[in-house]
Amino acid sequence: MFATANQVNSVLIDSLIDRAISPAEVKKLSYSELTGLAKEIREEIVRNLNKTGGHLASNLGIVEITLALHYVFDSPADKILFDVGHQCYVHKMLTGRRDKFNTLRQYQGLSGFISPLESEHDAFLAGHSSTSVSLAVGMAIARDLLNQKHKVIALIGDGGLTGGMALEAINHLGHLGKDVLIILNDNEMSISENVGGFSQYMKRIKETYFYRDIKEKIHLIEDKLEHTALDADVRTMIELVKKEAKAKIETPGIVFEKLGVDYSGPIDGHDVEAVIKALNNIKDKNTPQLVHIITQKGKGYAPAEQDSIKYHGVSAHSLEPILTEPAKTSEAVPYKAQPAKATGKTYSEVFSQALIELAEVEPNMVVITPATAEGSGVVKFGKAYPDRFFDVAICEQHAVTMAAGMAKAGLKPVVSIYSTFLQRAMDQVIHDVAILKLPVIFGIDRAGLVEDGETHQGVFDIAYLRSIPNFTVLAPKDANELRNMLFSALKNADGPVAIRFPRSQAISAEFIESNKFTELDYQSWEIIGPNYLTENNTPHKIILAYGSMVDLAKQAREIIANNAQVNNANISLINARSTKSLDEKLLAQIFNLANAKIITLEEGCLTGGFGTAILEWASSQKISKPSKKQPEIFCLGVKDQFIEHGARNILLQNQGLDAKSIANFVQGLSV
Amino acid sequence: MFATANQVNSVLIDSLIDRAISPAEVKKLSYSELTGLAKEIREEIVRNLNKTGGHLASNLGIVEITLALHYVFDSPADKILFDVGHQCYVHKMLTGRRDKFNTLRQYQGLSGFISPLESEHDAFLAGHSSTSVSLAVGMAIARDLLNQKHKVIALIGDGGLTGGMALEAINHLGHLGKDVLIILNDNEMSISENVGGFSQYMKRIKETYFYRDIKEKIHLIEDKLEHTALDADVRTMIELVKKEAKAKIETPGIVFEKLGVDYSGPIDGHDVEAVIKALNNIKDKNTPQLVHIITQKGKGYAPAEQDSIKYHGVSAHSLEPILTEPAKTSEAVPYKAQPAKATGKTYSEVFSQALIELAEVEPNMVVITPATAEGSGVVKFGKAYPDRFFDVAICEQHAVTMAAGMAKAGLKPVVSIYSTFLQRAMDQVIHDVAILKLPVIFGIDRAGLVEDGETHQGVFDIAYLRSIPNFTVLAPKDANELRNMLFSALKNADGPVAIRFPRSQAISAEFIESNKFTELDYQSWEIIGPNYLTENNTPHKIILAYGSMVDLAKQAREIIANNAQVNNANISLINARSTKSLDEKLLAQIFNLANAKIITLEEGCLTGGFGTAILEWASSQKISKPSKKQPEIFCLGVKDQFIEHGARNILLQNQGLDAKSIANFVQGLSV
Repeated sequence: MFATANQVNSVLIDSLIDRAISPAEVKKLSYSELTGLAKEIREEIVRNLNKTGGHLASNLGIVEITLALHYVFDSPADKILFDVGHQCYVHKMLTGRRDKFNTLRQYQGLSGFISPLESEHDAFLAGHSSTSVSLAVGMAIARDLLNQKHKVIALIGDGGLTGGMALEAINHLGHLGKDVLIILNDNEMSISENVGGFSQYMKRIKETYFYRDIKEKIHLIEDKLEHTALDADVRTMIELVKKEAKAKIETPGIVFEKLGVDYSGPIDGHDVEAVIKALNNIKDKNTPQLVHIITQKGKGYAPAEQDSIKYHGVSAHSLEPILTEPAKTSEAVPYKAQPAKATGKTYSEVFSQALIELAEVEPNMVVITPATAEGSGVVKFGKAYPDRFFDVAICEQHAVTMAAGMAKAGLKPVVSIYSTFLQRAMDQVIHDVAILKLPVIFGIDRAGLVEDGETHQGVFDIAYLRSIPNFTVLAPKDANELRNMLFSALKNADGPVAIRFPRSQAISAEFIESNKFTELDYQSWEIIGPNYLTENNTPHKIILAYGSMVDLAKQAREIIANNAQVNNANISLINARSTKSLDEKLLAQIFNLANAKIITLEEGCLTGGFGTAILEWASSQKISKPSKKQPEIFCLGVKDQFIEHGARNILLQNQGLDAKSIANFVQGLSV
Repeated sequence: MFATANQVNSVLIDSLIDRAISPAEVKKLSYSELTGLAKEIREEIVRNLNKTGGHLASNLGIVEITLALHYVFDSPADKILFDVGHQCYVHKMLTGRRDKFNTLRQYQGLSGFISPLESEHDAFLAGHSSTSVSLAVGMAIARDLLNQKHKVIALIGDGGLTGGMALEAINHLGHLGKDVLIILNDNEMSISENVGGFSQYMKRIKETYFYRDIKEKIHLIEDKLEHTALDADVRTMIELVKKEAKAKIETPGIVFEKLGVDYSGPIDGHDVEAVIKALNNIKDKNTPQLVHIITQKGKGYAPAEQDSIKYHGVSAHSLEPILTEPAKTSEAVPYKAQPAKATGKTYSEVFSQALIELAEVEPNMVVITPATAEGSGVVKFGKAYPDRFFDVAICEQHAVTMAAGMAKAGLKPVVSIYSTFLQRAMDQVIHDVAILKLPVIFGIDRAGLVEDGETHQGVFDIAYLRSIPNFTVLAPKDANELRNMLFSALKNADGPVAIRFPRSQAISAEFIESNKFTELDYQSWEIIGPNYLTENNTPHKIILAYGSMVDLAKQAREIIANNAQVNNANISLINARSTKSLDEKLLAQIFNLANAKIITLEEGCLTGGFGTAILEWASSQKISKPSKKQPEIFCLGVKDQFIEHGARNILLQNQGLDAKSIANFVQGLSV
């Protein structure tokens, strides 16, 4: 058992973090104490994450901003809305959850995201990006209509600001003129490096041609005027023009101010005093305000400062926790780095590697990602083929429609996207890709249960993609099948193809041979192991397993085989790799076995999913063959509920989708 | 039969429109001829739409821009991408489809939207807003990778520009620096009046404090300097500063230029020469360009100029086609206005009226619409309760998440949205509304088949909403049920409630009593007419009809009743008004009738829809009651294909969802 944070810190002399673990206590500290507290918080974050894993760099970057927010405002009366919500660790530590950090992201432990189910200090839930300003606008409208008095604060990163809905919300906020404070936490990168004219603009603001040009000319005029007799009025006017130009043009403010949102900043986000003063300056204004704060991701932990992308999310026991600033007390606990767990290749890595290998044979292939280049592994493709790689920032809608444009114009676009984020582009998938039947390939990563919890579960994609005409919806049983699906779709697709795979190690990745691909008729299913489908009269159970469930079904079959007592029926196992379209030929053969039991398995929601596709097919058969007896169908999948965070194997088990539960269910069916 | 356009125009002297009906011919005209052609085109549009109905105001506004585009560029080699695509009539007239305008929006006739299925001059398909810049970026990337040479042009309105994905795309375009031309058709309003800081900024650009201030001060300096001896250099410098300030600050350009897109304009969009010159000026540049063109919706047709919202879309025979400019030739055809068809109340009107009536009893209710205030009728609520009404422009994502924020903060938000546009906010519905089980009410308008065609069919909502945990998904059988569902949801909902209704006249709207509402247990179903569910041994067919299908099922039952020959079984009709959750008690009763046949009816996609919900329920029952015989289930709904445009009754018939087809199917089932 890991010592609690309290125990660890008890050796520190005059530990600020032990004194100030509530907003009320934070308010009592001096600026220098706050600076000291920031340091202690950083140390504790590094220590904790080395135990549990979690989002490191963004939380190290936001320490002073979080302290300043709790210093200046009064949570929970004032509503602090964390965009994305994975940079909420400091906030959680300050609002009563510090002693639970050793359970971070563990099953039934502290969530890695902001969540009002956990604390009244979490004003809303967030796991996806760019929602905070919309929420703030809604809450500010509510406050005013309900005659309440409090501040509504959206804390959003420059990455989140690239998301279309954040821009929609700022535009609307400017129109409404409501009392909303936006804190722009500008660390110059989202999950991957930030993309977009806006971001570049923020970076180059002080070196713009326009500003330099104006400035030079004003200097030149001044030079000339110096040798000219001028009265005081003129000199004053010139000074005013200069000041105005500087204030309005030098800073990024002009874009926001044009949209009706007052701008102040930029502020050094690691100078807690500066941040507090900036917030105090505008806290009593009742119009839309944006404070621009510059921070550094990974601040205070040297490896993360140098490579904040690598240290965006960290695994347990992967840190070398040597802080950049030397500890002031020699008693600081020396941390032991632990070796990272050896892991096999993930499906993300297999997919990314396949893209690189296929790049030469498919010269028109391009790869698009909405800010998940690292997580999905396609960053490697981007390094190998920068001209054919497009990280569009947190812009799923744009990503999909851009891909549609590319496909229409003759390219072969592959959109690498997480299942949960593809929800953002549902309309674009229908309206821009599917109607014209464009061959866009979707590599749907994190499809299935993920440890991040409710906001990130990739369980809806089968259901909603399956209802879209013209789509092919595939899931591979293992690493090689993923490679071959991608290869075959690039070669033959005449419409959109989705290939979904879970966030896990790839099955049989050890059998991958570089540059070897086999064409696959992916719309036909595969019988795995003995084929009993021709034995009409034997008691018979048929497992139709989709994607990640094939391997678990194999294990389940072995469990049953080893259990002689209940080994009462033949079990056929089908790798039903395409849920749209179905393999109707094989299904027809299966449906000839009227007394068989069919069990469908999927890592996705039962409502509308793969099992449902089989039910629908069976029902449609009734119309042409009304008197024909059909086998009974039993569907196993993710139940109709939002699934909490925790290790994927625990979540699968809770849903009855682990090998043992599947075995129990299958052998429990009487035939 | 309506005379073809050619015949009508044959009476005009020297008809330009007859000469110049192709891009090649347009290029041969002089500026004054183009001006004349614009006038003739407007006359023909008004004439045509008075026959067929269609989008009037936007097409009258874009005549000169379209002429200029075809004058300067070479379609189809150059790709012209029409955002939204309903302002494409002039383009269609010029590209070989003029003689088909009498079939506009008719079944198997000319589409009301842009569509590459219709002409190679339509570079992409569009019915939803804000996609053109993403498509342009994709096509420009493709062009450059494939070493092609052509222009890619996105033609987008200021309304479309409020959509988040357009902002995402501009941001990305600025980053890429690709050769893309954006034509901003600024008519200061989208479907409803435009909303947002950006739009206000565009309007007030010439009167900004900043600009006026700078300008005044420069004038003051000049005054002083006039009386001062200065050398020529200084005067030149001052001129340069002034010019720079003017060019960069006076125009909206600064926002776009900060994003990396060169700006030119604003141009008078009804001066064809000015537009052509502006396009010629930048056509050879190979960086992102935006040309800002000011137009007037409804231009040239006085009633539409005065009320472009009313004349956004017009019905056949609803126009008084007196053009503002007097016809130069006395031979101009005199148009006869025809009386508009008398129509009953639509579901939109019923919903909107109910909102107004409920406003007093539900003081915390607010209404949100994403730029469809007119179409959904809720504009009336907005006029009655402006403080509780939020038209957020074409920002479906923001609309839904803002509503979530409102609900969390204690309001009762009702989001009025078209089914097809709710697709844009799928993720927000899941992530921001459903996880926290917030009581946001969705009034889903145009749910079902609509005359607009593929891009607008509202057939996916049942399937995708049903797969989201915590949702209630309702559809009323008639006007009063819609009212009572809304009333009851406002009163009792403890989670999100969707109420879907079709684009049609409301059934039994004549029975509405103002301010009368009855609380409804909407998750229980209703038996309509005789209840045979207790008669176990009689041959039995049970129709489970959802929403709009209840009335058609009633008609079908009458058809069968009148057909003594086949009147072979009892028919029970159930108003299955909630597809999530299901009425499990009634279903259990129905499933006791093992020999009955169940027929499900829905105006939505069969894949994953209401019928599927019944199949899933039946399958789930098998687990606890494996040996129990179940009734057979037959699902009728919209097949797995994109549905073309045409009158709703034709489309329903094509899907076998009219009363007669339903009757045929039901009586054809043997029992």
